[in-house]
Amino acid sequence: MFKSIRHYLLGKTLAIRETAEEKLTNFQALAIFGSDALSSTAYATEEILLVLALAGAMASSHLLPISLAIALLILMVAFSYREIIYAYPQGGGVYNVAKENLGETPGLIGASSLVFDYILTVTVSVAAGVAAITSAFPSLYPYRILMGLLVILFLMWINLKGVRSSGRIFSLPTYIFIATILGLLIIGIIRVIFGILPKAAILTDVTATALPLQALSLLLILRAFSSGCAALTGIEATSNGVRAFKEPETKNAGKILLRLAILLIFIFLGIGFLSSQVGLVPAQSETILSQVAKIVFGKTPFYFLTQIATFLILFLAANTPYAGFPRMVALQAQDGYWPKQFSLLGSRLVFSNGIVALSIVSAILLLLFKGNVHTLIPMYAVGVFLGFSLSQLGMIFYWKKQGFGKHLKSVMINFIGFIATGTVFMVVLFSKFIYGAWILLPTILILLFVMKKIKKHYQNVEKILSLEETEFLRVLPEKIMMIVFVSKLNRLAIETALFARGFKPGEIKAFHIAFDEKEATELKNEWEIRFSEIPMDIVIDEFREIIPHALNYIRNMEKQWKESGGEKVIAVIPMVVPTSIFDNFLHNKTAEELANAIRKDPENNAEILENYIKVH
Amino acid sequence: MFKSIRHYLLGKTLAIRETAEEKLTNFQALAIFGSDALSSTAYATEEILLVLALAGAMASSHLLPISLAIALLILMVAFSYREIIYAYPQGGGVYNVAKENLGETPGLIGASSLVFDYILTVTVSVAAGVAAITSAFPSLYPYRILMGLLVILFLMWINLKGVRSSGRIFSLPTYIFIATILGLLIIGIIRVIFGILPKAAILTDVTATALPLQALSLLLILRAFSSGCAALTGIEATSNGVRAFKEPETKNAGKILLRLAILLIFIFLGIGFLSSQVGLVPAQSETILSQVAKIVFGKTPFYFLTQIATFLILFLAANTPYAGFPRMVALQAQDGYWPKQFSLLGSRLVFSNGIVALSIVSAILLLLFKGNVHTLIPMYAVGVFLGFSLSQLGMIFYWKKQGFGKHLKSVMINFIGFIATGTVFMVVLFSKFIYGAWILLPTILILLFVMKKIKKHYQNVEKILSLEETEFLRVLPEKIMMIVFVSKLNRLAIETALFARGFKPGEIKAFHIAFDEKEATELKNEWEIRFSEIPMDIVIDEFREIIPHALNYIRNMEKQWKESGGEKVIAVIPMVVPTSIFDNFLHNKTAEELANAIRKDPENNAEILENYIKVH
Repeated sequence: MFKSIRHYLLGKTLAIRETAEEKLTNFQALAIFGSDALSSTAYATEEILLVLALAGAMASSHLLPISLAIALLILMVAFSYREIIYAYPQGGGVYNVAKENLGETPGLIGASSLVFDYILTVTVSVAAGVAAITSAFPSLYPYRILMGLLVILFLMWINLKGVRSSGRIFSLPTYIFIATILGLLIIGIIRVIFGILPKAAILTDVTATALPLQALSLLLILRAFSSGCAALTGIEATSNGVRAFKEPETKNAGKILLRLAILLIFIFLGIGFLSSQVGLVPAQSETILSQVAKIVFGKTPFYFLTQIATFLILFLAANTPYAGFPRMVALQAQDGYWPKQFSLLGSRLVFSNGIVALSIVSAILLLLFKGNVHTLIPMYAVGVFLGFSLSQLGMIFYWKKQGFGKHLKSVMINFIGFIATGTVFMVVLFSKFIYGAWILLPTILILLFVMKKIKKHYQNVEKILSLEETEFLRVLPEKIMMIVFVSKLNRLAIETALFARGFKPGEIKAFHIAFDEKEATELKNEWEIRFSEIPMDIVIDEFREIIPHALNYIRNMEKQWKESGGEKVIAVIPMVVPTSIFDNFLHNKTAEELANAIRKDPENNAEILENYIKVH
Repeated sequence: MFKSIRHYLLGKTLAIRETAEEKLTNFQALAIFGSDALSSTAYATEEILLVLALAGAMASSHLLPISLAIALLILMVAFSYREIIYAYPQGGGVYNVAKENLGETPGLIGASSLVFDYILTVTVSVAAGVAAITSAFPSLYPYRILMGLLVILFLMWINLKGVRSSGRIFSLPTYIFIATILGLLIIGIIRVIFGILPKAAILTDVTATALPLQALSLLLILRAFSSGCAALTGIEATSNGVRAFKEPETKNAGKILLRLAILLIFIFLGIGFLSSQVGLVPAQSETILSQVAKIVFGKTPFYFLTQIATFLILFLAANTPYAGFPRMVALQAQDGYWPKQFSLLGSRLVFSNGIVALSIVSAILLLLFKGNVHTLIPMYAVGVFLGFSLSQLGMIFYWKKQGFGKHLKSVMINFIGFIATGTVFMVVLFSKFIYGAWILLPTILILLFVMKKIKKHYQNVEKILSLEETEFLRVLPEKIMMIVFVSKLNRLAIETALFARGFKPGEIKAFHIAFDEKEATELKNEWEIRFSEIPMDIVIDEFREIIPHALNYIRNMEKQWKESGGEKVIAVIPMVVPTSIFDNFLHNKTAEELANAIRKDPENNAEILENYIKVH
């Protein structure tokens, strides 16, 4: 039944394996790898303004200088990642780069930061996408958390169903967004030049007015800068997908990465410029981008188009971790760092467990942070910059192995990249520590601990199961003791005893737990008439606590049997199994529970032989 | 962990079996067997008034005649049950009497009516007990359902813990109730005689005023009578506990039954008399008994004592099914009519499953009927009278077997009892049909069907397991085919194959499900090098849907093996078992799921041999 529901929801099992992925044209690639990065312009400027607003209306004049600094950072990071693209065309995720060049622990820290990033990309993009919609349709504002959860559910569903990534469809929302935003910027700038752009009306629910003014300290500027660094999230995406580009792969990928960076800088600075011209102040129920668009376009269809395009690109950005996260976890699970279940393709040829885990955790985050982008940004930014700086550090060590001398330009680029991103990481971590950035540290530590513990367990199992080392155990029946568990003297018990005896084990015993002395004597007498050669041991317990007695008996027998030269014990359990669900309720599961208890008991090494009578 | 929580909640396992129950003095017995019957006076009069109120204020003059008719009925039923006490001193429940004298189906109908009654006794008594409290403390009224659920939870808890029935403690609440009610009646009657009992103030939330007036038809009178018959519930209790009386048991029990009936009649008529004198009208938030007590005592401590005593006796009444129901179900489960689990004593030597089932169902009823006594009464009354009339009918057949002539007086009594209770059953059923009495019919039919179906299943199993009929199966290894399931070529797989081969089965095969052709060939080659004599069959499925392939293979092999003269197939399953919970999550349960699927599959008769490697 469960299966048919699943089939109904997820469609027929895919018959054909997606083998060769289609190659993307540069035009498509920009859209597909760019959605994550470009979509962050939907909230980055607002995050800067939110911090600056704390120091009063005048402080917003710092918006442009801060934005320029971030634009410079974008350029440095883009050039640094172009080096990674050349060095790791097969996929330059921080896990690979750090593990290969820095060792296991840095690799795992990189992996943990990626887990952190992927999850937050979903949560932040969904929250920001919903905010784009509720800005245009304020009556939906009270339902924003529900809407966010539905979007995540939808993402989970389409990904479990298995999206066939089609470059054409997926590049559409990005280009709609680029077109509308460029239109917005151009018209806005023209209106500024001609001096016909109105000033913003002061909104009633301005977030910052409720808070006491702060002095415009250096710390505040650093905090504003840290918030704005959210603009960089997703810029590394291209370096993970080099294989999807047309030949020459690395050259195309590098080119697209730079073009993307320039586009990103242009949009980000443009939004910053218009915001500061109009004198916008962040509001709770309307995003800055929505305010800008409303002032530039008025409440025309172009305004609504902007909001919908913003939602769509953010939806696409929220979808990218669904491609990356399950595959990364599957790879790491193959390396033994995550439960093996994550490395198994489901019947739809997707890593279902990863998709479900990603959805659940990001939905929980969305709930915990009440769908509020601002409170999520500090964590998001700090996680992303940890990944950036680890990657750049890894690259420095990579070039060292290749020989610094031969790659001086690349070394310099990655070195500058490392200094820049490392510094920003520290700035974000400290300036945003109490605003949520601290969460990164325990999370990384816990993930690191868990991944290492999992690895250790699998190594242990692998060692136990390995074909080398010692001799294989060859246990012959004469070295085996069989213990037949008898609950009643019925056909099943007798046939089970006959069955066990047929194997001619070295020793065979019967075991029974009796309610009282009388029952014990009666059963024993009857048993001895039928099986004089199978001695029966009986424990009397009026409470019939079967399992503890049985485990105890098995442990003792195993010990005795090994002491007297035996090798193995087999618990032989007769079972009446009803094959219908209704009848299932009419039988207590004592035999099944006993088998399970013996199986899980660390203090015995008995095998189990189950002898059935099935009742239809 | 679960066990220690259980121990904490339910105390240490009882070390000593309660063997000989203490014998009750007549004084104690009246209280213990009387609580159920006497407590119904807390609501019976109100139920009559509720119906009469529909015909306007004047109709309440019919209260006394109706009450007198019910008093007569009480006498008849008491005398009829005294005959049952003499005839069935070992326990004259309707199940016994009807089964022995009328046959299986009437016995099961009786059993179903008892199930119905026991559950409703809990629900009605708890609801009425809570009503007694909320009448005295109206601020608690909004929490009545919660309070009722807590009372049921408490009843479940003390009964799971195992109440040691102590005659002294249990008779106390009943006598407090008897004393306060008698005090109430005597003072009330004196005040009536001296003409100093005030008339009732009309309460604002009078239930009936909201409904349109109805003509005082015969049907209405019959409905009022039917409602009042709730006074008889519980009167049969004595006949189930004859063995608890001191010698001469039956004589004492009969005597107490009659005394109880007279006391019941006196209290019931007294409350009716006072209510009609004061001109009380039923109200939603205050019971009639509370109104009577408030008028007679004023808002003195005596009033509150009356309400608390009423609660206590109703609590005791709600507790009686906890003694009766689990034992009855256990007995019927031993007869094969209920799942065997109900016949097992728990570690506290109580029939825990019965106690839990009773609590859950009565709690659900309380929720469904919103803790409202009035809506429950029609069901309750019709169920009780079905039991009464079946018992009396059974007794008539009993006397027929004994010879009518020798027991003429008894025959007459039971005959009158049958005519009276049978008529009342029909009256209640039809006059209250649309008010809830109809629920009895489908319930009885369903219970009857279920009980018969369960019995049939157990008979079937018993037949299969019986020691007679055919020869026992003696399967020797040469008639056995072993199928070793291989998921990987590791130490476990090899040792399992060696282990299976050691038994020298008639045939041995290995089975593997491969992901693709390459994996299949590699494994097969490696396998053939090690085990040339164990042919390996491989199915290729890129989706690795293991279980359907495995079941299919087993079914086919079993068919082939039997066709070529074999007798049995054993599925040999290697299992890696982590003994810690954490590690448990790191292994997919494929092997366990496979074993379970083979076990439950109706289309194979394979046994299972599990070979473990335990990972600590």
